[in-house]
Amino acid sequence: MAAEIAEQPAVLASLLARAPEISEVAAALVRRAPRFVLLAARGTSDHAALYAKYLIEITRGVPVGQVSPSTMTVYGVRPDLTDVLYVAVSQSGGSPDLVESMVMARECGATTVTVTNNGDSELAKAAEFAIDLQAGPELAVAATKTYTAELLGLYLLLGGDAGAAQSLPEAAEKTLAGSEAVHAAAARYRFASRLVTTGRGYSYPAACEGALKLMETSYLSAHAYSTADLLHGPVAMLGPDVPLIAVVTPGHGGEASRPVVARLRESGVDVLVVGDGDLPVVTAGIPEELNPVLEILPLQQLAWRLAVDRGTDPDRPRGLSKVTRTR
Amino acid sequence: MAAEIAEQPAVLASLLARAPEISEVAAALVRRAPRFVLLAARGTSDHAALYAKYLIEITRGVPVGQVSPSTMTVYGVRPDLTDVLYVAVSQSGGSPDLVESMVMARECGATTVTVTNNGDSELAKAAEFAIDLQAGPELAVAATKTYTAELLGLYLLLGGDAGAAQSLPEAAEKTLAGSEAVHAAAARYRFASRLVTTGRGYSYPAACEGALKLMETSYLSAHAYSTADLLHGPVAMLGPDVPLIAVVTPGHGGEASRPVVARLRESGVDVLVVGDGDLPVVTAGIPEELNPVLEILPLQQLAWRLAVDRGTDPDRPRGLSKVTRTR
Repeated sequence: MAAEIAEQPAVLASLLARAPEISEVAAALVRRAPRFVLLAARGTSDHAALYAKYLIEITRGVPVGQVSPSTMTVYGVRPDLTDVLYVAVSQSGGSPDLVESMVMARECGATTVTVTNNGDSELAKAAEFAIDLQAGPELAVAATKTYTAELLGLYLLLGGDAGAAQSLPEAAEKTLAGSEAVHAAAARYRFASRLVTTGRGYSYPAACEGALKLMETSYLSAHAYSTADLLHGPVAMLGPDVPLIAVVTPGHGGEASRPVVARLRESGVDVLVVGDGDLPVVTAGIPEELNPVLEILPLQQLAWRLAVDRGTDPDRPRGLSKVTRTR
Repeated sequence: MAAEIAEQPAVLASLLARAPEISEVAAALVRRAPRFVLLAARGTSDHAALYAKYLIEITRGVPVGQVSPSTMTVYGVRPDLTDVLYVAVSQSGGSPDLVESMVMARECGATTVTVTNNGDSELAKAAEFAIDLQAGPELAVAATKTYTAELLGLYLLLGGDAGAAQSLPEAAEKTLAGSEAVHAAAARYRFASRLVTTGRGYSYPAACEGALKLMETSYLSAHAYSTADLLHGPVAMLGPDVPLIAVVTPGHGGEASRPVVARLRESGVDVLVVGDGDLPVVTAGIPEELNPVLEILPLQQLAWRLAVDRGTDPDRPRGLSKVTRTR
């Protein structure tokens, strides 16, 4: 896991070098002029899909839904998907339920595209268009480099400006260099059994993915909430013994989170800020819609460091395998 | 909270008596022939919206998305919502972000409808069509009767057969009578600090809402996952010390969950089954799409009982108020 975390600047650079190839697919999707987008994914890839949801809604003004695969695979529904763009995101491209719902979506009239780290996968073959991330094999069970590659791949696929992304690898390198702060944060959570993560808008996917990394590697109970949802119920859980990790970086999402985070801190909640605070994220010169690629980096490092400090093996979490065979 | 839990059979019966009035709105929505549905809600009402997602996808074959209000209220996006049905669900009808996004959705061309427990609310006034649940004032902070009223209101609004729902109040009464089993389950979790809930398809919303009730009233850390997602990461958290509450009732969702739950139990996970097991749900004669109204009942009772047993006040959770003012 540590090795794969460190590879990310190189993986991002190599994906950026293939931007013209991905732009061709992006142009083909624009020509279909979808009226609605459906996203299908699970686990870490579902957080990349959540990023795509914000990206599409904000930059394209097209409504987006996340697929409940069971409606097609368990309940056998055949929806009318004319004018729909169906995007499946998967590291392995091997989840049978995703493959099955992709086949059905195509039969039901959707334009289908997939983003995977395996161009020969069943999922890639089932889709009309496929982006192969070529991030290299990911050996640790907890996905790291495929997550950031998925984010950048989705950004390019959905019409993002490759020029604006050129400084990402360097920014990732600089962000990953802040390991002392990560070490201190791991010490802070050494004996925590649960915590809550939060972020708003573009920063919400990092809160979700950070919570999953902490759960997968350290068996912490970590809940992620959008900073708006946090006030509708979950805030009751927070207190001096249940800390909050807030992702706050420059941009509209961070601005919306800032007053809520300040209010919670004033009321006695233990808060660690990722971005403009305890765990720095180097975002200078990066547009807000690319911040998510960087925001997750210190959280990945924290999950790894905490697992090591707590004596668990971050590379082999109990009960998990790479391809999850659900229907 | 206990009083409001007990009122639910009567609330459901009184809402059923108004089915013809709600059917008129349902017919108006059908005439608009929406191509996509967007759902907006937060907290408990978001779980009712999740139920509506399954109901619409399965019974209508129309794709559904859940709104990220921040894209409109924080990022200022004005999407093209022609052919879109926009449904907002809220107990109070007072959340400023929901009201603001409802106004915008209407301006952007959507057919708008709201389901609230306050027909005079800002949200009800902002929507073209409004269903007033008339469930009576809910004094406990943790919503119970408004949740089941929202589910039944959405069922009727979305074209559900009122005839099939006639036996719901009696089934709710019988399900609520199983308080001894609830008492035993509360004793079982007396010292738990965290647990996981799960369900699939129509039973997934009950898993989500049950987890929220437990968190709100007993400050337990409760994670909800669809039974398919459970195997993609979160399963690492489960073990002899982190129990699983699985909602398994008759129908396709329960059938899909059953083998996963059996496998987890064989691997040593402590499992409590709601429905066909430890906490019985009386579903005889009820179609699967109405099971969610009943599945939540023993979970509400469990949350209340556990809070009382642990010496906290289930009616006044720390840090929460009825109307949450986010933007």
